[in-house]
Amino acid sequence: MHRLALGVEYDGNGFNGWQRLSKHGEPEREGEQTLQAALEFAISFVAGHPVETICAGRTDAGVHAQCQVVHFDSHAVRDPRSWMLGVTSRLPPSIAVRWCRPVPADFHARFSARARRYRYRILNRPVRAALERQYLSWERRPLDADAMHRAAQALLGENDFSSFRTVHCQSPHAWRELQDIRVTRTGDVVEVEVQANAFLHHMVRNIVGSLLMVGSGEKPERWIGELLQARDRTVAGPTAPPTGLVFLGPRYPAEWNLPAEVTL
Amino acid sequence: MHRLALGVEYDGNGFNGWQRLSKHGEPEREGEQTLQAALEFAISFVAGHPVETICAGRTDAGVHAQCQVVHFDSHAVRDPRSWMLGVTSRLPPSIAVRWCRPVPADFHARFSARARRYRYRILNRPVRAALERQYLSWERRPLDADAMHRAAQALLGENDFSSFRTVHCQSPHAWRELQDIRVTRTGDVVEVEVQANAFLHHMVRNIVGSLLMVGSGEKPERWIGELLQARDRTVAGPTAPPTGLVFLGPRYPAEWNLPAEVTL
Repeated sequence: MHRLALGVEYDGNGFNGWQRLSKHGEPEREGEQTLQAALEFAISFVAGHPVETICAGRTDAGVHAQCQVVHFDSHAVRDPRSWMLGVTSRLPPSIAVRWCRPVPADFHARFSARARRYRYRILNRPVRAALERQYLSWERRPLDADAMHRAAQALLGENDFSSFRTVHCQSPHAWRELQDIRVTRTGDVVEVEVQANAFLHHMVRNIVGSLLMVGSGEKPERWIGELLQARDRTVAGPTAPPTGLVFLGPRYPAEWNLPAEVTL
Repeated sequence: MHRLALGVEYDGNGFNGWQRLSKHGEPEREGEQTLQAALEFAISFVAGHPVETICAGRTDAGVHAQCQVVHFDSHAVRDPRSWMLGVTSRLPPSIAVRWCRPVPADFHARFSARARRYRYRILNRPVRAALERQYLSWERRPLDADAMHRAAQALLGENDFSSFRTVHCQSPHAWRELQDIRVTRTGDVVEVEVQANAFLHHMVRNIVGSLLMVGSGEKPERWIGELLQARDRTVAGPTAPPTGLVFLGPRYPAEWNLPAEVTL
């Protein structure tokens, strides 16, 4: 057996999120297809034996990925390019394998990752999106992106993010290190990019939902810092919709020799 | 009666191009819906009377628009914001009205336009697109974007573009003024942006198809200039697929007081 890592890109529309809900190898119910099951089906076909995958960060229904990373074990002997092209040819049009790399047996897509990066894009104008609507959320009230950026800086550092996790979050504690957060505007599109060592369930979408209240003037800039201090989910803004969210990918130490896009 | 101009954004996937093929007001056949018929249906509903539209530039099946411009006449009295929101609310998710402006009776969406601008995006990597696949074409052979850019400059100026029109093109002559063409690369995406006073049928896609042959090394840079001189459609490259093409919009003289995005 040897271990392989894949960089996987997907459009989350039409999927019930990353995590397979059916038993491994069993068919999924119509309308409840998951990305993990689709990927495992394709990898297993190419490998010639059943394959289970572990991913760097599970994404919710409707959330996209520019570069999700998974690892799996196989005894099939193929070069990386064949894995990439062979698996992609068995995937639906909304999923593609960007690259494949052999990795040591102690590489773990989730536990070896030191950081994760997300991007959230909001179309900010009076009318909804038509072009690229599959990848944008929409806010019709004018947003002050600079105010959102300033307010967001209060989240930097090692903090208890209880105010920004869902009640369904299964993590034993809510301490995470937020390493970078920036809010920028390009024309009608406001973009939030954020990096942390790891994220709680719904953390990015809850941060964005609260920043939107600052951007629209409903709450003052200092409110974001106050939310963080409150450590109480009931006081933060609503969860922003999934469509605007893209998991840019995890970041690993350089020693794993993975492509630059997922290396620290 | 007064005349109104609309800026219209659309995702061309699933439409049989701009131009209505059925008679005005008659239903279109399943799978052959056009953008013009969908828009006229929505405008007529808001106007309360049948409305026909004239557009700045008809787009083919599968081609998108960031800002198509149309004009129409109506005796309905509504403010521009109501037109924009009302018409959009009657449109399918893939079409939206960006803005509405009252214009003088001698404004004509097609004949008043002095230039048109298009963008073509190609994902250039070994595997097909998953994210944003609705808006990208795909070339697996490595492309030299700088060579494509240099070759393209031979097209600038007032020229007979017979080599780049389809046999179905109904224009009486093939002289057009190409005002700007640039090819750039950002990561895996090669982008061609081009502006002319007007375009022949399939002209952008035929130019891109020929530039791809230069970019992949199949043809030398000087070949583009030779094609232009040949004035013979049979010698140029294949027509690039529609998915990567976006009509950025027409450009009008400032005197019409239209939004900056469609003003020269």
